[in-house]
Amino acid sequence: MKAVVVLSGGQDSAICLALAVRKYGSGEVAALTFSYGQRHSVEVKYARRLAGRFRVAAHKVVRLGFFSDITHSALLDRGAEISRAAGRSCPNTVVEGRNVFFLSAAAVWAKSLGAADVYTGVSEADFSGYPDCRGAFIRTQQRALRLALEWPVRIVTPFLHSTKADEWRIADRLGILDLVKNETVTCYNGVPGRGCGRCPACRLRNAGLASYERQAACGAGGGGLK
Amino acid sequence: MKAVVVLSGGQDSAICLALAVRKYGSGEVAALTFSYGQRHSVEVKYARRLAGRFRVAAHKVVRLGFFSDITHSALLDRGAEISRAAGRSCPNTVVEGRNVFFLSAAAVWAKSLGAADVYTGVSEADFSGYPDCRGAFIRTQQRALRLALEWPVRIVTPFLHSTKADEWRIADRLGILDLVKNETVTCYNGVPGRGCGRCPACRLRNAGLASYERQAACGAGGGGLK
Repeated sequence: MKAVVVLSGGQDSAICLALAVRKYGSGEVAALTFSYGQRHSVEVKYARRLAGRFRVAAHKVVRLGFFSDITHSALLDRGAEISRAAGRSCPNTVVEGRNVFFLSAAAVWAKSLGAADVYTGVSEADFSGYPDCRGAFIRTQQRALRLALEWPVRIVTPFLHSTKADEWRIADRLGILDLVKNETVTCYNGVPGRGCGRCPACRLRNAGLASYERQAACGAGGGGLK
Repeated sequence: MKAVVVLSGGQDSAICLALAVRKYGSGEVAALTFSYGQRHSVEVKYARRLAGRFRVAAHKVVRLGFFSDITHSALLDRGAEISRAAGRSCPNTVVEGRNVFFLSAAAVWAKSLGAADVYTGVSEADFSGYPDCRGAFIRTQQRALRLALEWPVRIVTPFLHSTKADEWRIADRLGILDLVKNETVTCYNGVPGRGCGRCPACRLRNAGLASYERQAACGAGGGGLK
């Protein structure tokens, strides 16, 4: 096995999965999904479907049920209102340290499969302000995991410096634009595809798609702005 | 709150807890224990008792049930024989990346409690060869957690360079030698106190205690070797 892809069921991780499969072939790629008490747990169902669509060699859904014991997040609490407090860089949907656990579990599984690569769809360019999506964290966590596991794990972040519009362009080039549009769920309220349209995750996704579609239309018209 | 102590129920973490309580007072100290499928799960019961004995302000037992899904370890498998393969630095009781998860969960909880310190009883001087007990890993993981959480967490490792004999000496100075001798469980087979006497954890613990007791007896006799 060559790679473990952290697969949430959202657009970022779906495109990551496509990139890993294109590079290594589906027989060398495994996918790992987390059930962590997220209010939009329907994404786990979409992750299973994506794993099937891409015929990955193995797919696991791992339960991390402890987050609500040790921290609070609007993403873990169906009764909470999703908001960004004035002056705060980070909205209340942050699940503290989530990517520490996701990447570490993926690295542990990767070692047991003999795989070096762990793919994650994080971006620091066009994101929700979560600190565990930044390159500085990813690089440091990679070093920590190499030391902890004595395994040359490589955290692969194809979208670290990409906007959502860039991601949609990559999806289009990979021939999976419709699949990603319709068969992924990003919405914090668990509405697949275009989502509820109002939550911050939908706004980011849909604005990125609109931006890409404008660029593509201009490009298709010939001589338009890229 | 000032500190979260990773409390397994073994001697290292019990003495760590005593040090944190001595420094900050029991009202400022919380303890965190993990139920992760370990064969010696009786240690969780001992951790609860220790938390009560030291009157910590809060104690949680968090379930990390996923290890056996993503890796293999003799510590998670009651049917496995505990061994150290020839030429391997690490025995088959290693649970890959265990301390990544323990320290990260403790740091997340510490942030939510407003505490900066996370205590762990790891040692690189007199240990089982687990790479996630070494200072290089601990320092790097601390940096990763500071970046991921935007919180000035400090991983406190009082025994990083201590032998087991050193730890027993500290327990004696703290007036908890008998408590640690009798009310902790280190044995991989789950036998409290002196344990089964045969597994690698018992050998390390009991050799350290014997070594300390010899030193103490010589010291008490006056003029003996220290």
